[in-house]
Amino acid sequence: MKVVFGSPGTWSGLLLRTGQWVFAGASIAVMLSAFGFSSYTAFCYLIASMGLQALWSFGLACLDIYALKVSRDLHNPLLVSLFVVGDWVTATLSLAAACSSAGVAVLFVRDTNFCTAFPQFSCGRYQISTAMAFVTWLLVTVSALVMFWILTSD
Amino acid sequence: MKVVFGSPGTWSGLLLRTGQWVFAGASIAVMLSAFGFSSYTAFCYLIASMGLQALWSFGLACLDIYALKVSRDLHNPLLVSLFVVGDWVTATLSLAAACSSAGVAVLFVRDTNFCTAFPQFSCGRYQISTAMAFVTWLLVTVSALVMFWILTSD
Repeated sequence: MKVVFGSPGTWSGLLLRTGQWVFAGASIAVMLSAFGFSSYTAFCYLIASMGLQALWSFGLACLDIYALKVSRDLHNPLLVSLFVVGDWVTATLSLAAACSSAGVAVLFVRDTNFCTAFPQFSCGRYQISTAMAFVTWLLVTVSALVMFWILTSD
Repeated sequence: MKVVFGSPGTWSGLLLRTGQWVFAGASIAVMLSAFGFSSYTAFCYLIASMGLQALWSFGLACLDIYALKVSRDLHNPLLVSLFVVGDWVTATLSLAAACSSAGVAVLFVRDTNFCTAFPQFSCGRYQISTAMAFVTWLLVTVSALVMFWILTSD
């Protein structure tokens, strides 16, 4: 199997995975610190989805560290297939969470006067958290494409 | 190249493409008939995204009919690569549109009393249109996976 940027068990792979769980964790932290988020299903779903993403990416980052430490090659078809399925599923869930939150955030900020009428709600944090979820999705999509590339160019 | 369910230029492929543009068109029609949709960015984006999806799928359905009529084989790598990219892009946009609309629809129906407070807004139609967008996304994802399968198992 080819070793390309973002391959499992490489420094670039570790960097990509770390970026994923850091952004997912930051998205959760910002949302949790925003007043009133728990009243809205989309924002709660964002936390759940980013939580799953952070767990998945953190687990794979640990696996990368282990592989780098003991110089083990993670390029076997079974393992890469597992990464492909996991990455595609979590990427889809992350995109769904980011988009539903974006829909609600845009509704609050642009479509209605909610944010000016109720300044106690943390509209800015809703937007920052959503933006971070989109960054997480982008990074996971890169991983998913790389894994698929590795698997099919076998 | 393999011929599997949903391959371009086959009856199953034509059925899949027809399902896509019919559901995308129905989603647009239901949303356009819903009172007050134009005030919400997410619903307007749903119409734009489903419009693009309907055009893409309708075009490919016409190509399938042409291929069936003149018994032409559409399984060449360049054409299938084009289908893969188009399907993945439109599938991602459709999922984004369906999820952002779902976020807003759930906000109206469950999180707030908007639908009971303003019964003149067509909350039921917002939900039906969003559900149809999800069906469209599922059908496009099937197409995208089939195209990718055909391309990689070349």
